Amino acid sequence: MKKDRPLILLTNDDGIHAEGIRYLKMAAEKVGEVYLVAPETEQSAVGHSITLYDPIKAHEISRDGSFYGYGISGTPADSVKLALYSILPRQPDLVISGINNGANVGINVLYSGTVSAATEAAILGIPAMAVSLAQKKFPPFQWAMPHIERLTRWLLKFNLPRGVALNVNVPALPPEKTLGYKLTRQCLSKFRESFEQREDPRGNRYYWLSGEIPTDETDEEIDAVALMHGYVSITPLFYDLTAHSCTEDLTSSLKKL
Amino acid sequence: MKKDRPLILLTNDDGIHAEGIRYLKMAAEKVGEVYLVAPETEQSAVGHSITLYDPIKAHEISRDGSFYGYGISGTPADSVKLALYSILPRQPDLVISGINNGANVGINVLYSGTVSAATEAAILGIPAMAVSLAQKKFPPFQWAMPHIERLTRWLLKFNLPRGVALNVNVPALPPEKTLGYKLTRQCLSKFRESFEQREDPRGNRYYWLSGEIPTDETDEEIDAVALMHGYVSITPLFYDLTAHSCTEDLTSSLKKL
Repeated sequence: MKKDRPLILLTNDDGIHAEGIRYLKMAAEKVGEVYLVAPETEQSAVGHSITLYDPIKAHEISRDGSFYGYGISGTPADSVKLALYSILPRQPDLVISGINNGANVGINVLYSGTVSAATEAAILGIPAMAVSLAQKKFPPFQWAMPHIERLTRWLLKFNLPRGVALNVNVPALPPEKTLGYKLTRQCLSKFRESFEQREDPRGNRYYWLSGEIPTDETDEEIDAVALMHGYVSITPLFYDLTAHSCTEDLTSSLKKL
Repeated sequence: MKKDRPLILLTNDDGIHAEGIRYLKMAAEKVGEVYLVAPETEQSAVGHSITLYDPIKAHEISRDGSFYGYGISGTPADSVKLALYSILPRQPDLVISGINNGANVGINVLYSGTVSAATEAAILGIPAMAVSLAQKKFPPFQWAMPHIERLTRWLLKFNLPRGVALNVNVPALPPEKTLGYKLTRQCLSKFRESFEQREDPRGNRYYWLSGEIPTDETDEEIDAVALMHGYVSITPLFYDLTAHSCTEDLTSSLKKL
């Protein structure tokens, strides 16, 4: 019986001891057999890093006296690679990364360890989704659980094109108050941000990145906007950064070089 | 006279003391006034990380008794942000990141700090290029210099679309032996890789990522292939990860959810 259940790999960037992945586990267990393979320590804003020049260790982590998952001395992308190549009994049917506390929309998609874990799974040919909840402080993760369960069941049936991962952002609203699921695209406008300059007690200058103010966009098909309006935003991601739209102009200009 | 020269910001991920950025400086100085703002320590494979929860420091670094550049306690993307917002006297005309020792092609583009610095500049609206030399050990950086000078002059005239950065990979060949410049696209096939499992003297398991074997592709319009064949590979990058090709199918499937 049990071997017919889908195998779901869970990971995150906040570390295996984070609350977000515990709620993710509770939601995913309703649908399949889950494995947790996640960084041992918090790895936020690591981007899509991998560990090339250090060995990676995997520790069995227990919780309440029984086995909980594998804690990895590496990044979210490392965790996915190691799980797929060396830890799981077979290829998983799905990889879910999260639940991140705080949204991952717009340009932050490039900086996010949560998203990069899903992208890494997609690169390795496994359907994947990253899940973030749009509240940083005391995040009510339980509000994301019914969405995760529903989207997981759907993803296990839907034939996601190879290489594509979904970036899911859940608004900080009780499930019955969300406006539904909306397919979106990554917001491309830059955030309004600046550095605050300060001086330490010894007179040395230092800087804090501050003032990240979201976009002025209003189109609901943009991830940040859909989320702000109360939708669960779902952006399909593909790991091709090539700017295909400008190759012609560049080719002809390069010929003259 | 001097104020009419283009202003060029240089950065990297190997750190301000690396040899690669020193050669980059020599090449770029032939074309414009250069500023070095780069991480103080090596930051390879940091991906597109930014520092959100720590202050960033900038130290004036000297070399041979005079001012050389600013060493930043952060990542390549941090360096670009801080340079643009707080250090440079005006917006630069171009940002160049490199010279990386070792190629940055295919999926490695997602992992590379060198490339992410150029992408960050593009996000902030400045034309940018990342330069890598395809040799890891004792890299002959001087071979990349004439290419950098030529491409820099060209980029300062060519109207690169806003948000686009160029990912330039130079083969480890004397300039006269390269086959020329080729516009390419990011290789999307995964590398063949695996983890070697070992045991430490105390019997604990650990893993090394190994066996990164390049692609089987043969199309010369793919970055890894063009480079292998002896071309200077130039891939235009844009920071939109949205998988636009599959939005229709997903939208209709989500409606039924």
